[in-house]
Amino acid sequence: MIDNRPIGLFDSGIGGLTVFKSLLHALPNESFVYLGDTARLPYGSKSPQTIERYLLQNIDFLVRKNVKAIVVACNSASTVLLGNTRTFPVPVYNVIEPGAATALKVSTGGKIGVLGTKATVSAKSYVRALHALDNSVQVFQQACPLLVPLVEEGWENDPITNLIVYRYVAPLIQAGVDTLIMGCTHYPALRENLAKATNGRMALVDSAEAIATLIHADLSQGRLGASEMRSDLEIMTTDVSASFSEVAARLMAPHVIPPLVEVDISPLAT
Amino acid sequence: MIDNRPIGLFDSGIGGLTVFKSLLHALPNESFVYLGDTARLPYGSKSPQTIERYLLQNIDFLVRKNVKAIVVACNSASTVLLGNTRTFPVPVYNVIEPGAATALKVSTGGKIGVLGTKATVSAKSYVRALHALDNSVQVFQQACPLLVPLVEEGWENDPITNLIVYRYVAPLIQAGVDTLIMGCTHYPALRENLAKATNGRMALVDSAEAIATLIHADLSQGRLGASEMRSDLEIMTTDVSASFSEVAARLMAPHVIPPLVEVDISPLAT
Repeated sequence: MIDNRPIGLFDSGIGGLTVFKSLLHALPNESFVYLGDTARLPYGSKSPQTIERYLLQNIDFLVRKNVKAIVVACNSASTVLLGNTRTFPVPVYNVIEPGAATALKVSTGGKIGVLGTKATVSAKSYVRALHALDNSVQVFQQACPLLVPLVEEGWENDPITNLIVYRYVAPLIQAGVDTLIMGCTHYPALRENLAKATNGRMALVDSAEAIATLIHADLSQGRLGASEMRSDLEIMTTDVSASFSEVAARLMAPHVIPPLVEVDISPLAT
Repeated sequence: MIDNRPIGLFDSGIGGLTVFKSLLHALPNESFVYLGDTARLPYGSKSPQTIERYLLQNIDFLVRKNVKAIVVACNSASTVLLGNTRTFPVPVYNVIEPGAATALKVSTGGKIGVLGTKATVSAKSYVRALHALDNSVQVFQQACPLLVPLVEEGWENDPITNLIVYRYVAPLIQAGVDTLIMGCTHYPALRENLAKATNGRMALVDSAEAIATLIHADLSQGRLGASEMRSDLEIMTTDVSASFSEVAARLMAPHVIPPLVEVDISPLAT
């Protein structure tokens, strides 16, 4: 089944670029449209009602861009999507369920840790997704509000970041967690800090890789039409700022960043 | 001149509550309406165009609430206001100019430091306001993107916060700054950390106090109609989340927090 339309994906801002990078790498024939809702970022500290409004507006926007599928490349928005019963004209993927499935596969001791934003942790979306697959695993959550600003400040290689990361993971080490879900698309930028803080003893699960693997399987098995050749890459944001390009270059490297286009999605407000 | 209408003020979220607290204390007869645009916070990392759209929507909203004056209790939005030539139906106060005037009064050595968000620092609004009053002062700016999340995380009394604060002020100590403007409404929550990091050698200027003093003077001198008696206090936010109430209680104490009301200002989108 051939379908040359692009795959759409969105995030509150730049974090979803880690998902974009995984998809670009795993699906070399596919075209993509990326939407970063930078005018309203971050989502992770906001209420489910507000995140839902943004989620529906972004999906609406991408559907109008004629995509064949949408990846919600943001854990906070994926969390809200999982609680939503609406149906959409194209398949909409969340990053929670593939991350949870991967964590179960790699866990050796049945103790899984989840790092996430306040929104993701409060909604217990990973807890639910993990228990839906295996009710016997123990799940330990930790909200980490400072990690996104640290990545956006570019302090990945900084002793202060190591201190903060250690502060967040200490209770999970204490609990004997063997597998750690990086439950926010910014966190893979802190993979080395997390490996250091956990002394290399926890398997680190990146939802970006998990969702790329899932979509690759859906394309191969004909559940989603495949493209013949990549024709287009587009990045759009709802606010253009110098820091987006700068952080994007850091997160995406060595991939080339397509030129940025600013869009106004406020007319779609529901 | 009697005018019993409330004074409106707004911020991207909770930071402006430090201004609200100063106004409540300095103007015991006045009524207030506070708007926290929590659905779209923070402003400080966004572009001037986007902040301007939010600024105009918030002013529009407060004008419809029949206020007699508006205080832009956010340095990033005040910065954009200063660059805007529009006229409004009621006086609109920024927090930059009163802060700059106070800094000049207390500075002994003519070397003034400014801590602010990326938006405030990039626009050089304090530099301009200071030089408009006294072209001979030297101004040293420092953007501090991590301080707002640290306050919102409640880590004021934490050695990690001291380390980060020290990192940000070190270049200003090096430059011999004698007076430091806390150019973001969250920063007064870190007054003790700043005093410690600067070894008590810099005068700390709080825009919240400066704007309260200015409005007090305008009321006393009849440039703004005074109220006979406080009748009303209202706090509205564009997103209700548990953390707003919690951080609000911390920043406002010992003042009583009026009950929160959620509002949707998206219909005002320009």
